[in-house]
Amino acid sequence: VLAEIITIGDEILIGQVVDTNSAWLSQKLNQIGIKVKQITSVSDDFSHILSALQAANDRADLIILTGGLGPTRDDKTKTALCEFFNTKLVFNQSAFENIENLFTRRNIKITSENRKQAYLPENCSPLPNMIGTAWGMWFEKNDKVFISLPGVPYEMKHLVEEQVLNRLSQRFRLPNIIHKTILTVGIGESNLANIIEKWEDQLPTFIKLAYLPSPGMVRLRLSAEGADKMELEQEVEKQTQRLLMIIPQYIFGYGEDTLESTIGRLLLDRNLTLSTAESCTGGYISHLITSVAGSSRYYQGSVIAYSNDVKVSELKVSKELIENLGAVSKEVAEQMAAGVKEKYKTEYAIGITGVAGPEGGSEDKPVGTVWISVAGPLGIVSKNFFFGDDRSRNIRRSALMALNLLREQILNS
Amino acid sequence: VLAEIITIGDEILIGQVVDTNSAWLSQKLNQIGIKVKQITSVSDDFSHILSALQAANDRADLIILTGGLGPTRDDKTKTALCEFFNTKLVFNQSAFENIENLFTRRNIKITSENRKQAYLPENCSPLPNMIGTAWGMWFEKNDKVFISLPGVPYEMKHLVEEQVLNRLSQRFRLPNIIHKTILTVGIGESNLANIIEKWEDQLPTFIKLAYLPSPGMVRLRLSAEGADKMELEQEVEKQTQRLLMIIPQYIFGYGEDTLESTIGRLLLDRNLTLSTAESCTGGYISHLITSVAGSSRYYQGSVIAYSNDVKVSELKVSKELIENLGAVSKEVAEQMAAGVKEKYKTEYAIGITGVAGPEGGSEDKPVGTVWISVAGPLGIVSKNFFFGDDRSRNIRRSALMALNLLREQILNS
Repeated sequence: VLAEIITIGDEILIGQVVDTNSAWLSQKLNQIGIKVKQITSVSDDFSHILSALQAANDRADLIILTGGLGPTRDDKTKTALCEFFNTKLVFNQSAFENIENLFTRRNIKITSENRKQAYLPENCSPLPNMIGTAWGMWFEKNDKVFISLPGVPYEMKHLVEEQVLNRLSQRFRLPNIIHKTILTVGIGESNLANIIEKWEDQLPTFIKLAYLPSPGMVRLRLSAEGADKMELEQEVEKQTQRLLMIIPQYIFGYGEDTLESTIGRLLLDRNLTLSTAESCTGGYISHLITSVAGSSRYYQGSVIAYSNDVKVSELKVSKELIENLGAVSKEVAEQMAAGVKEKYKTEYAIGITGVAGPEGGSEDKPVGTVWISVAGPLGIVSKNFFFGDDRSRNIRRSALMALNLLREQILNS
Repeated sequence: VLAEIITIGDEILIGQVVDTNSAWLSQKLNQIGIKVKQITSVSDDFSHILSALQAANDRADLIILTGGLGPTRDDKTKTALCEFFNTKLVFNQSAFENIENLFTRRNIKITSENRKQAYLPENCSPLPNMIGTAWGMWFEKNDKVFISLPGVPYEMKHLVEEQVLNRLSQRFRLPNIIHKTILTVGIGESNLANIIEKWEDQLPTFIKLAYLPSPGMVRLRLSAEGADKMELEQEVEKQTQRLLMIIPQYIFGYGEDTLESTIGRLLLDRNLTLSTAESCTGGYISHLITSVAGSSRYYQGSVIAYSNDVKVSELKVSKELIENLGAVSKEVAEQMAAGVKEKYKTEYAIGITGVAGPEGGSEDKPVGTVWISVAGPLGIVSKNFFFGDDRSRNIRRSALMALNLLREQILNS
């Protein structure tokens, strides 16, 4: 089954908004075995929408439109759909009652513009939207399926997950596809590829492997396609376990896990607490840790020691040490970790100091130099990194490497 | 002049990568007076690329392709371009020497795949790419311009800014367009629209206003189009000054400014220092402040007091106060701000405490409740906010409102 996505909206064509809907939708369609052939972004214009529909009709079996259904727009999408299907708009009582309910709850008066949103093409099967005023629409014509969805990402995703994916699986004969994403950290793509080459070569032909690199991380996605869903799941699980035997130290999670959620789980399981002392990362590690809901159960807090004065007064870093070795040194990172660990009375603590840039670099400590220490029950370990010139990337990579060093230490204990 | 952007790459169609190139390119084209009519994403496939080229040729005056030029790909873009223009690939000595140089610098051996990148269609005018191996290409056919660019965002942007925009301005007769973006914070879109309605109504017809809302902020973009560039600039400046008289308190900057960079400038100008004490935002405010290069000149650091113990021991918040009023209260926020201000010896300090969610809410302090205090030379001011249910949005909006309260206090002093 080949699909085409048509996104409607001038805001995309003037570059005001990045079209994230299409990528999300493509992923979801791929997961149920539908391949996206083309993505087309067109303007809020009757004839442009109509010609995009006609062109997509020649290419794809499934056409999904997003956007162009808002109350302040001139509703060109629905008019174009009516023209394409040779039908007319009719008033839908349920859709109108839903709009009324939404407005009553928000204490807003309903306008004639909003009432227009309750008119839907006569030939469509409506996809009720309880969290917004624009309903989705499902059409069929000559064995092809057309779906029109609101452009608001939250509403579009809700409709797709609650109604569209199920209905597509029933409507089309789709292959069974199982996906599993294995998350690795601390090793680059080409090194990883070398280490797991033999494992990759022995994968059965119905399992495909994709490398998805991002700064500091590589995600490995296994996609298995076949007739027996249970068999696919078992084989993917078996291959995952094999991989785990080869690179146990690099795999930190699966699917939607993050390094910070993994650490949270490790600490909770062991009933341990954490604190941090950050210089160059300036609170970014703390931000990642506290972005996990429930992190207050293991995270005590941080000393963001951006100035050397604070390092000395709050973390008891030796002033002489800073003067002799500089603030970016193994010893200072260690004293920061030890200092906050004692101060906040936690089992684990991270200390980090580095040159994020663009200023502050020197011959022997260029921009991108970072020292990371983790203090734990068994003592302190430290690691040195050299990243690049880009400030925001240095901050991000430093934080990931610090969280990974912490993860390793918890697992080693 | 109407443009169409064609992005080539399977990674976009499987949703692995969000197409940010198109939005960036659309903005740049808009700024020089070229309107993007359609964006089309197609697969790495010879006939698909060819049919997309033919369809775009019927719609647009300018067709820009990105992607599909990498060394590991089967080079379908260049083959499709040759077919479309009825020409053939020829070896380009300068392009090859550039690839050789790049590889020598990185100490990598050149492969035959890389050598292939030096072959370009005979009819193109090459756009030399000194930072990557894939060169850009400029074609003309029947008064239309076709440009093929690498898909790596960094290389694409470099070529567009250094070569393409200039050449387009020379090639087409483009209108003069001046853009100015005015950044506001602390007021919603509809309230803002009401307050500035009269100003909006008196704008000359050659100046268009667009509202670009994002959580916590509204950007106002003025676009002026006309014959005399200098006159346009003067009029936009005049109108900006008029707006500044109406809403001085809401405008924090222009163009690429951020709230955190504006605060940095205000503090540097006045030779003042800052510290923060964060609970619910968990380091995000500190992260924003330190994302500005050079922030170590005014930012001392933060106490991330995620636990109540740390609030009491490090910030001298009264234990009784927390027991009686709860950690989310005006008094605690004030003591946090005062505590860190004294401890880190700064002129300004932010204290913030709230319920980020999803847990921790209560009847009188639901999820989304936040107290923000700013301590400064003239005393302490506090503000109370009620955001929504979403944890990450609560953190982001709390941080923005805290930075804005600080900005107001610095300006009021």
